[in-house]
Amino acid sequence: KMLRRVLCTVLFVGTLPSLAEMSQGHISVILLGATGDLAKKYLWQGLFQLYMDQVSNGHSFTFHGAALTALEQGQRLMFDVLKKLACPQDEAPNKCAVLKDQFLKLSQYHQLKTAENYTMLNREIETLLRQEGLKEAGRIFYFSVPPFAYTEIARHINSSCRPPPGAWLRVVLEKPFGHDLESAQQLAAELTSFFREEEMYRVDHYLGKQAVAHILPFRDQNRQFLDPIWNRHHVERVEIVLKETVDAKGRTSFYEQYGVIRDVLQNHLTEALMFLTMELPANLSRTDEVLQCKLRAFQSLRRLEKSSAVLGQYQAYASQVQEELQKTQEYISTTPTFAGVLIHSDSLRWEGVPFLLTSGKALDERVGYVRVLFKNRAYCTQSETLRDAGHSQCKAKQIIFYIGHGALNTPAVLVSRNLFRPVMPEDSWREATGQPDLHIFGQPLSDYYVYSPVKERDAYSVLISNIYHGRKDFFITTENLLASWAFWTPLLESVTNQPLRLYPGGVENQHLLDFEMVSGEVVFTLAEPVELLNPSRLMPSDFKSIQSKFRQSPLVSAWSEDLISQLASDIEKTASRTVAHAGRFHLALSGGSSPVVLFQRLARHHYAFPWKHTHIWLVDERCVPLTDTESNFFSLHNHLLQSVRVPYFNIHPMPVHLNQRLCVEEDRGTELYAKEIVGLVANASFDLVLLGVGTDGHTASLFPRSENGLEGARTVVLTESPVKPHQRMSLSLPLINKARQVFVLVLGKGKHDITTLLSRVGHEPKKWPISGVSPSSGQLVWYVDYEALLG
Amino acid sequence: KMLRRVLCTVLFVGTLPSLAEMSQGHISVILLGATGDLAKKYLWQGLFQLYMDQVSNGHSFTFHGAALTALEQGQRLMFDVLKKLACPQDEAPNKCAVLKDQFLKLSQYHQLKTAENYTMLNREIETLLRQEGLKEAGRIFYFSVPPFAYTEIARHINSSCRPPPGAWLRVVLEKPFGHDLESAQQLAAELTSFFREEEMYRVDHYLGKQAVAHILPFRDQNRQFLDPIWNRHHVERVEIVLKETVDAKGRTSFYEQYGVIRDVLQNHLTEALMFLTMELPANLSRTDEVLQCKLRAFQSLRRLEKSSAVLGQYQAYASQVQEELQKTQEYISTTPTFAGVLIHSDSLRWEGVPFLLTSGKALDERVGYVRVLFKNRAYCTQSETLRDAGHSQCKAKQIIFYIGHGALNTPAVLVSRNLFRPVMPEDSWREATGQPDLHIFGQPLSDYYVYSPVKERDAYSVLISNIYHGRKDFFITTENLLASWAFWTPLLESVTNQPLRLYPGGVENQHLLDFEMVSGEVVFTLAEPVELLNPSRLMPSDFKSIQSKFRQSPLVSAWSEDLISQLASDIEKTASRTVAHAGRFHLALSGGSSPVVLFQRLARHHYAFPWKHTHIWLVDERCVPLTDTESNFFSLHNHLLQSVRVPYFNIHPMPVHLNQRLCVEEDRGTELYAKEIVGLVANASFDLVLLGVGTDGHTASLFPRSENGLEGARTVVLTESPVKPHQRMSLSLPLINKARQVFVLVLGKGKHDITTLLSRVGHEPKKWPISGVSPSSGQLVWYVDYEALLG
Repeated sequence: KMLRRVLCTVLFVGTLPSLAEMSQGHISVILLGATGDLAKKYLWQGLFQLYMDQVSNGHSFTFHGAALTALEQGQRLMFDVLKKLACPQDEAPNKCAVLKDQFLKLSQYHQLKTAENYTMLNREIETLLRQEGLKEAGRIFYFSVPPFAYTEIARHINSSCRPPPGAWLRVVLEKPFGHDLESAQQLAAELTSFFREEEMYRVDHYLGKQAVAHILPFRDQNRQFLDPIWNRHHVERVEIVLKETVDAKGRTSFYEQYGVIRDVLQNHLTEALMFLTMELPANLSRTDEVLQCKLRAFQSLRRLEKSSAVLGQYQAYASQVQEELQKTQEYISTTPTFAGVLIHSDSLRWEGVPFLLTSGKALDERVGYVRVLFKNRAYCTQSETLRDAGHSQCKAKQIIFYIGHGALNTPAVLVSRNLFRPVMPEDSWREATGQPDLHIFGQPLSDYYVYSPVKERDAYSVLISNIYHGRKDFFITTENLLASWAFWTPLLESVTNQPLRLYPGGVENQHLLDFEMVSGEVVFTLAEPVELLNPSRLMPSDFKSIQSKFRQSPLVSAWSEDLISQLASDIEKTASRTVAHAGRFHLALSGGSSPVVLFQRLARHHYAFPWKHTHIWLVDERCVPLTDTESNFFSLHNHLLQSVRVPYFNIHPMPVHLNQRLCVEEDRGTELYAKEIVGLVANASFDLVLLGVGTDGHTASLFPRSENGLEGARTVVLTESPVKPHQRMSLSLPLINKARQVFVLVLGKGKHDITTLLSRVGHEPKKWPISGVSPSSGQLVWYVDYEALLG
Repeated sequence: KMLRRVLCTVLFVGTLPSLAEMSQGHISVILLGATGDLAKKYLWQGLFQLYMDQVSNGHSFTFHGAALTALEQGQRLMFDVLKKLACPQDEAPNKCAVLKDQFLKLSQYHQLKTAENYTMLNREIETLLRQEGLKEAGRIFYFSVPPFAYTEIARHINSSCRPPPGAWLRVVLEKPFGHDLESAQQLAAELTSFFREEEMYRVDHYLGKQAVAHILPFRDQNRQFLDPIWNRHHVERVEIVLKETVDAKGRTSFYEQYGVIRDVLQNHLTEALMFLTMELPANLSRTDEVLQCKLRAFQSLRRLEKSSAVLGQYQAYASQVQEELQKTQEYISTTPTFAGVLIHSDSLRWEGVPFLLTSGKALDERVGYVRVLFKNRAYCTQSETLRDAGHSQCKAKQIIFYIGHGALNTPAVLVSRNLFRPVMPEDSWREATGQPDLHIFGQPLSDYYVYSPVKERDAYSVLISNIYHGRKDFFITTENLLASWAFWTPLLESVTNQPLRLYPGGVENQHLLDFEMVSGEVVFTLAEPVELLNPSRLMPSDFKSIQSKFRQSPLVSAWSEDLISQLASDIEKTASRTVAHAGRFHLALSGGSSPVVLFQRLARHHYAFPWKHTHIWLVDERCVPLTDTESNFFSLHNHLLQSVRVPYFNIHPMPVHLNQRLCVEEDRGTELYAKEIVGLVANASFDLVLLGVGTDGHTASLFPRSENGLEGARTVVLTESPVKPHQRMSLSLPLINKARQVFVLVLGKGKHDITTLLSRVGHEPKKWPISGVSPSSGQLVWYVDYEALLG
């Protein structure tokens, strides 16, 4: 057996201690896909580096390349790769040559195809260990294979190749880990049936990039400087960027299924984002606490919408896809090759700070960086010409984790000199000099403290070393992975078949891909694109002929998203006008599901809304405690009130819960609410009442044939709903009809029948309470989406 | 009579129409203080300019110089000034010479000292008009005299020199208009007893500066571009600056009483601020609406505090004052010659935008400007080197009203080219070219659209012309003046005798006067000043030996600011620990003034505070409506709750206001609150109770010898306070003593006596309720500042 021979040879090398004597145990590394691209380019070199670093540190090693290829051919292919392994510059050439020789001898090729192959591999490892008298420390299986092969390999390893008790198993997985939340969950579930969480090492090679890997240590070691400024009050914006000059040529079979968001943003850039935004645990070495903080940071991210992203595709992509995937001329790819995404965290620390994630292929330069730009809070009394170059507080303040390439062409950490001199670990980062005139992010390099790695290390070397050391914090746990997919999937779904901006590629892109933030959304700066893919869906203008009246009142109609945005903006206008005129705005809101999107829209896009002067009233309420998830107020609070600044005193939930019981007549909740209204709302005329319509024609909580609230003098009433929870409190129809404005929102196909019916019937509130809405001196406007209107 | 002769001569000048024939009426201009500095330097020239501009527009004029000086000497002095009047470059020399000759002939000197002098002047004007057959249009009295003389002159004019019905009176007043709100009110009241509001023209000559005067028209004419961006979402900051190189030498007798805030900020810079922040009325020519908008803008300004300003004094000022005012060496002037002030408006439009007003003498350059800097909302995908110079959205966006001097040395309006091309009135502003490489506010001039006046005009010429045209919007109304003083007076009072930073003057100031915004305050950037006036208070290190126990419990002591920061951070730690362990944190807070600073600290500095899981309870409450400014909850809401995100359901104000009445026993508010506590707080043990101490030893609203709350089973009680409002609701001592932690905060010299007393007495809650605080199984910590502890 070759392996036998190899070990014997190794034991003869006098300069090194005997493996059996010194070993704290033996480690078998099995590289699956040993002759593939990634293995050729990075993994074997990384394993060799591991061997060089660890050869005298107590473990012994064997390296098993594996693939589907038959033994002889595979062996030849693999050793062709191994012979080309490079000696790093910082290693003495002689010593390295000896080590490389040993490494080759410790390496062996296996064909791994059938169950028997795996059993055989396992037996060989056992035999070797027994013969050499070695204790087994553990086994590393590195999956450098396409994801469709994962499950089968995992099954074989689990059933045939597990090390004996006392030794560990580490399986290393390469992305993609699914293409959306569902597929990622499925893949994760399969893997979890074979491996325990602590056995799985999911690689995001960005976590091996030195500048990225140093974000958390940097935050930890510089707490004294960062604590006061690492927050929304000091940070103006954050940019997380990976620009590539290459395009997807030759890889379109992969790329066409994934696109730039799945390829780069969901994983690499998101991980960097988490390192920046997560709260720091007291002790970074507590991997579990780091993970918990990271997961909490995911929870704080605001949900992405279609308008959170700008997307593009380089012009040549279409023909590359047609050619490589044998598609016809009619085939239109909607895969984005460029994306700019605006992300907000709703944590107290980061609320309002824009995080811009950008990546693309065929751009003008290759560069990666994470840039934190601080607000300028200084006024420099001295005139510009007299300011001290290095330290003026009026210069830009930035912290940049420079991942690589670009003008600097090396990983680096840059800190503006007017911020602070950072604490950096001396053994791994050193202050860099040279190129002081190089301009980077608007300033000469001499304006920064610049640190670069003492030893520049390839990401895979770093990661392989971390696998060896069992440092799981450098890898993506299942929870982490699913949190990321849960965050990105809504955006991915909403942008399917969205128009993409075409760009020529390279420097010719000019300003085509510049984008701007406008009210929480991003848009390309140049308003008129040269060309768009997928001339978009039906336009509202196609429905020009729609009537503009409904039941003799004004009608606004559009696709639901546009309708909501119009309604929100109309409410804001009414609010601003009313506050300007009367000093306050009394707004009564309905419960139900339709208003939720409206509430979210108001919370996120209407910064000029005069919340401080707005009173919020409920149109109706379910007789449940206010903190019950069924409560209308609870929903209103969650989707709107907790995101805006309405004074506590201006919030008026319905008193359905008094004396520890719900809607009991003698607790007089309805009277209480009626008094509150009369006490605060002039003439009990709300400025605006927002209503919905049920499929049975109910509105507010006034149901067909209700005994209360459809007529009479009472303003607030208890009613009975045909569906649970049955008991309700509601404003009465006569009170609603005193309002200055009433907007009725009707959304969705499910409302088409009642909409059609209502367009025909007259004033019959007993049958259809909504038909009784007719403000005596106010205005009624219908907001009905195309689905409800047209079915 | 000279005047008679003059008019005759004028009537002979053939090139001009006869005054009597063409006149729409005659205007008499009376310049009081005709031989003073201001008159010499600006006013006569301005009057001559008025004459040149208006000579053929229908009115006839006479000009009456007046002073206390006797006739002959005054005449000589005055005509010496008049002879030196300059002809403007844009006037034909010949024509100007003729006009100057006429102007001299129309001018006459009067001694105005006694009542008779005024009667005489009036008679002369009447006689002239009768003899020439002229209708009187109006009289302008220009007060170029010290303010102490105003009242007497005003009385004389009112009683003897009013024009007949049908003709107008305009009195022009120069600052200072008082030195604080009270004196300004007094002066205004006196003037109002002699003149109607529309008769008074208070000059702020900055309103005659062409760039300042154009702010409102610019906003009006560029509404289409500015409407979307003239707000807090787009404006990053605003700087309003007047830097002078001269110092106060020779003027210290005036300056020592006023200082830079009264001399420049209260008037000139504030007016510019108003032009920027006020809402624009639909029609700018409606002077009354403009004024109303301006007054509303004043109302929106956040109250200034000591920490809103940084102040300095140039080093030579002290000796100049000693010399000029014959003061001894011991005399220390506390008059600031430099001020940087941070102003916030709480209007919806401007909330959060910093307005920095800066002015000083003996600085490195002479320059005045109003600079609006916009936020950068763009991400430019193209690398910096490839960006289009003029229009990149990633370049700074600014609008600058350049008042004069400085690098440009001309009034100008500058708009960044990546913003918009402004609409400018062609007859008065033209696009300027030249000096494209000149750098101004960090960018070459070629990055801006630059407009300068077609005709550069001196501020006084502009103002005199506006007086003539009756354009009151260029002057400061009484309401406007008092609003400004009401805004500035609190700051002026709070900074009296504050330490000033000394600065050497000129370029040697270096970075000494640079300042920064930190949590809504401003501080000098260089933390260690070279030297301070009024060397500061005792340092904490002087108190190293302070004991660490107080009444057998742990004691934390420091200067109040450090103490608050320690307390806030301890509360946050307790909160985080409790939430991590129990899922929620029950915090009971006291009312009163001491906690306010704590609330602000918590709101502004503790981003990681787990507010979402915190319940807020009140320790005590005054029996007033919750929205009353006296309410503890109202203060808590204003200073803390409205800035953080505590869920509505977790906020528990005390139910002092039930059934529209306050703290009535049978409304059972105390029982209600007790039930709420029992329902939510496990074992009714608050996680943390924050208390204060009154000078009488009361804590919560438990006063000495109180009948309720000091003992017994009741948890929430109604009590009587010796001070108003008398009725209170309070947690009882037994309930407080069930808490897991109790922190007692004691601040200020006023608490020194009670602190000393408490350090000696035992457990006597009837006498000193605070002495009864002794958690049965929790921890008590005292937070006492040095002033309370050491007196």
